[in-house]
Amino acid sequence: MTAWLVNGSPGESVPVDDRGLAYGDGLFETIAIRAGQPRFLDAHLERLQQGCDRLGIPYPGNERLEADIRLLGDCQHGTLKILLTRGSGPRGYAPPEVATVTRILGLTESEADLTPVAAVRVRYCATPVAVNRALAGIKSLNRLEQVLARAEWDDPGIQEGLMLNDRGDVVCGTMTNLFLVSGGGLLTPDLGECGVRGVMRDRVIRVAEQNNISVAELRVSRTNIENAEDMFLTNSLIGVWPVAELDGQTFTRSALTLRLMQLLADAGVTECAV
Amino acid sequence: MTAWLVNGSPGESVPVDDRGLAYGDGLFETIAIRAGQPRFLDAHLERLQQGCDRLGIPYPGNERLEADIRLLGDCQHGTLKILLTRGSGPRGYAPPEVATVTRILGLTESEADLTPVAAVRVRYCATPVAVNRALAGIKSLNRLEQVLARAEWDDPGIQEGLMLNDRGDVVCGTMTNLFLVSGGGLLTPDLGECGVRGVMRDRVIRVAEQNNISVAELRVSRTNIENAEDMFLTNSLIGVWPVAELDGQTFTRSALTLRLMQLLADAGVTECAV
Repeated sequence: MTAWLVNGSPGESVPVDDRGLAYGDGLFETIAIRAGQPRFLDAHLERLQQGCDRLGIPYPGNERLEADIRLLGDCQHGTLKILLTRGSGPRGYAPPEVATVTRILGLTESEADLTPVAAVRVRYCATPVAVNRALAGIKSLNRLEQVLARAEWDDPGIQEGLMLNDRGDVVCGTMTNLFLVSGGGLLTPDLGECGVRGVMRDRVIRVAEQNNISVAELRVSRTNIENAEDMFLTNSLIGVWPVAELDGQTFTRSALTLRLMQLLADAGVTECAV
Repeated sequence: MTAWLVNGSPGESVPVDDRGLAYGDGLFETIAIRAGQPRFLDAHLERLQQGCDRLGIPYPGNERLEADIRLLGDCQHGTLKILLTRGSGPRGYAPPEVATVTRILGLTESEADLTPVAAVRVRYCATPVAVNRALAGIKSLNRLEQVLARAEWDDPGIQEGLMLNDRGDVVCGTMTNLFLVSGGGLLTPDLGECGVRGVMRDRVIRVAEQNNISVAELRVSRTNIENAEDMFLTNSLIGVWPVAELDGQTFTRSALTLRLMQLLADAGVTECAV
């Protein structure tokens, strides 16, 4: 059951002429609710605002969105989705001179999962992730590539798929960012030209740097992965997923991954407690 | 005023959890109504069905969509929009095993514009169009690139902007396909890796071939454009727009463009009558 709020009022529908539907002209965030609080809310709102700036959509402001969140009521554990669109408009790609942003919030309460994190099985996807510097980094509503990549498998034993761009760089999972442990530090794909800059990815980088663990953002090839000591995936809801196997390549947990997970657990990502 | 039909009933809203809104997980067509009939309806429905096949969305069938169109009632002149989405679903990119497609149709009646076609002014856009063979050719709801490109100018004297991919190929206009007149025949960008395969583009190619005018689909560079004798743009609503000027380069009408416009006018694209 998800409780929805549209422009500050309980509601479960949007007008058919909303540009979010027509063109994917908008952005979203998916936020973990843990111990009654939206985790890393400031970071999510910051990315949302940056996305609005990039697309030229007026940002409603943190106060407005935080008031919406309060209206949704108390929740101990669950998932909060925030979706902003450029609102309704006449036919045609040209954005209206004055956009009336549509704010959609959905709160889904769930049981806390107390099972310890298990390493996941991962595959490579054939669906490419497109290179486009205009959309790189932000979490827009144009997510068909991820949908098609995720539709490539239905084996419930495989938890995630990795996507490459047409240059052969490994960019991201369908819903995660990826990190490699290599040479005593971390490598992660540079997202200047494609991919979504995850809030959990940022948090991993920050925690690593605070603890003198080097992080290099660069183009990552399949060869980089073959040569890596370890690999893990991140997103806001899962925290960290250590990778057990990727299309036949197996990984054993490195001390660095375990140390980072403990540091993240200390920073509020309780799923990472081992 | 647009009359809307959602899943066969008058309606102006869709559920907030529709995947068309969440991920742009769907397709659309924009169809000219001329002399009381949706022009080239078969071709539009064929492209829609091909798009559904590519995305793995169940196509509702021509009969169902034609019944929807009849329900919208009589219209002499206007624009019909058909939008299909993968319907509602739980959070997450994985498509539901059984999708219940959402059908949205909008009919906007308008006055017939009897002004003869005038040549248009065009510019180059900075927003790139992404290379992605998984989405190339189809008219999906992921159209943020076009929105951002169209937002680059607000001079009403400029009617269209051309978009390039990151390889430097000129691919399309924000809402049009493009043709060059060169060496006595036509050149048009190959759309195997990006761009939308327009219904009017297909019609131009067919009419040209039926009249022994050569058409080459290939990678088009800015140099190809600089060396072209003439240039025109196409889409379903405008028919053909001859280009007067592109960022300082002027074009004068070639006999081939005029001949093609007459052939298109004979084939039902009455806007092309000169």
